[in-house]
Amino acid sequence: MYRMQCDLRRGYDVTLTTGLFDPDNRLLHDLIGSRRTLVVTVPAVDALYGAGLRASLDGLPAAVHVVELSERTKTMTTVLEICAAAQEHGLGRRDVLVAFGGGVCCDVVSVAATLVRRGIPYLCLPTTLVGQVDAGIGLKGGVNLGGSKNYLGCFTPPSGVLVDPALLRTLPAAEVSAGLAEVLKMALVRDAGLFALLREVGPELIRTRFAAPRDVGQEVIGRAITLMLEELSVNSFEDHVLERLVDFGHTFSGRLEELSNYSLRHGEAVAIDMALSCALAVELGMLPAEEFEDVVSVLAGLDLPVHALICTPAVLLDAMRATTVHRDGHLNLVLPTAIGRATFLRHRREVPLAALKAALLRLTTAARRTESARVPA
Amino acid sequence: MYRMQCDLRRGYDVTLTTGLFDPDNRLLHDLIGSRRTLVVTVPAVDALYGAGLRASLDGLPAAVHVVELSERTKTMTTVLEICAAAQEHGLGRRDVLVAFGGGVCCDVVSVAATLVRRGIPYLCLPTTLVGQVDAGIGLKGGVNLGGSKNYLGCFTPPSGVLVDPALLRTLPAAEVSAGLAEVLKMALVRDAGLFALLREVGPELIRTRFAAPRDVGQEVIGRAITLMLEELSVNSFEDHVLERLVDFGHTFSGRLEELSNYSLRHGEAVAIDMALSCALAVELGMLPAEEFEDVVSVLAGLDLPVHALICTPAVLLDAMRATTVHRDGHLNLVLPTAIGRATFLRHRREVPLAALKAALLRLTTAARRTESARVPA
Repeated sequence: MYRMQCDLRRGYDVTLTTGLFDPDNRLLHDLIGSRRTLVVTVPAVDALYGAGLRASLDGLPAAVHVVELSERTKTMTTVLEICAAAQEHGLGRRDVLVAFGGGVCCDVVSVAATLVRRGIPYLCLPTTLVGQVDAGIGLKGGVNLGGSKNYLGCFTPPSGVLVDPALLRTLPAAEVSAGLAEVLKMALVRDAGLFALLREVGPELIRTRFAAPRDVGQEVIGRAITLMLEELSVNSFEDHVLERLVDFGHTFSGRLEELSNYSLRHGEAVAIDMALSCALAVELGMLPAEEFEDVVSVLAGLDLPVHALICTPAVLLDAMRATTVHRDGHLNLVLPTAIGRATFLRHRREVPLAALKAALLRLTTAARRTESARVPA
Repeated sequence: MYRMQCDLRRGYDVTLTTGLFDPDNRLLHDLIGSRRTLVVTVPAVDALYGAGLRASLDGLPAAVHVVELSERTKTMTTVLEICAAAQEHGLGRRDVLVAFGGGVCCDVVSVAATLVRRGIPYLCLPTTLVGQVDAGIGLKGGVNLGGSKNYLGCFTPPSGVLVDPALLRTLPAAEVSAGLAEVLKMALVRDAGLFALLREVGPELIRTRFAAPRDVGQEVIGRAITLMLEELSVNSFEDHVLERLVDFGHTFSGRLEELSNYSLRHGEAVAIDMALSCALAVELGMLPAEEFEDVVSVLAGLDLPVHALICTPAVLLDAMRATTVHRDGHLNLVLPTAIGRATFLRHRREVPLAALKAALLRLTTAARRTESARVPA
């Protein structure tokens, strides 16, 4: 018998900055150095920020590849198109791919970077709030296969992430809301103070797209990033355990997204999943009903849904089945036990059908009550 | 700035065994446990060993997926077909893919295993000699993209490798020769004793397909595996240096394979590359001419080519260019300085065109001289 030892330790920095493309902001230049670079972006971002990006890359052997991206085109076909562009642009194995876009852009670029020449470095410049606090700062990439969300993908750490909240200024309000769903996720399982902050300034942050109050906006993003990286650091490749607090809101949401044919935003599906999980926690006697109401009211304040028509007991059971397979035979449903604290239900038998139905009823009632109070988009 | 630490340390065992599918051989069973399993194999292997394999897997939730594989179909399309089969068979993220075939089979299965559910375990049961001493025991997978060999791929350690030399019994002699090229590679850069062994018993091992002398056959494979894993262990992800002794014979060979449209076997291209590298070392005054002659005579004894018509100065320059890009701007050409010892040329300018032409001439002469001495296949 012959033994092989492999060792891969890698760290990377997520840097909060402002004015990413300002001439005196050298962060991107310093990360790229003199390497050949291919930036992948989407038409909408290119239209808004392409000129600034190109000016900033002036003098570097860099090119920009613009590609239509959505949950529907988040497939291996798109990844291979990016790989071919990398080949075309002559990227060597120490050269660099850059994702300049939202979560989907970071997802497909990280898969492409994983494959090109058996892995080349990549950077993320997330332009959406979901990207800046979640999809763009971790090491997971994913594409859909035959209707299964993220069936194919990778765990590949980026070489660096630059987060500029000023890029959020041009987002639709609904995009900001969807991003705040991921912030709320971290708050609910880890940080009661962040929850209070969201309740207080969430609506204003949506209205101003994080421009005001600016320091609070930065604090919200910074705290969300810190919490996320802390959670990812202890189990970055998910090879130790599959009980992850960051999976809160991600047990039912994938199936809801798939069933809505991706008309439901990821963050919206996560919001519904979180509300449902809180309702379930109430039904199971793990969370006081007032805290559920608290969560519902903050979700409403963030203009996020708490329910959807596709959310039926059959669909939820099906979602739990799929998630259980994905989590290696364990459900690992994250349920809050207080604002800022959570626990796991490992087995499906711990979620009786009656409790699920009661939780859905609780959601319906709450949804009706809050409909009229929703902040207009 | 927020810091993220990722840590991936993994080890795996390469186990030399015999009678892999014998009822009392529990190695495969022990590696699989009770997990769902999808074995990927090729028609030729299925015809010879499919019954034994299926009997051995009896009672396990295992399926066999047979797919046509060659350098020509070593593409992402084939990988995606395997991913879809894994999805169809309901593999969870701790379930297992098994490659049961030659180097190409191990290559595509490792890429598929890298992508399915962001990475699931895989095992290799290499059925060719190249697979057993090289392609099937490392952590590199690869597929071709648009005429570029292994442009896409991964560094993904298998969970285990089972090597059964008895599987070699049904190989064409040319396949055994091609595998011995990779053994000779390790011998030339690391192990003069193994070189002597190859000179002595190589032809007989080809004739008997490693059945006799059996203990020497096992020793040859075992030594080759040990040397290979030692080299890979110090730099498994090639993130430290790109000077690798195991790249001996792999500077020109990829281009030769591409240009031959893969009619040249990988091992045959490696043989030519090794002969050329030795000739170059002579021209550059780094290797005594007798040692080059020694290498040529052993290559002839192993029925391996030392030259090919496509091997022109222009092609070799082009190959060096491509390899230099792949090795991040450095040529890192491995040249032997004695049987069992080698060094690196980092820069292309260290290989003058005149020396390259003289080396080619030396090859032509050697090829003519040995043609008549070649062992019949």
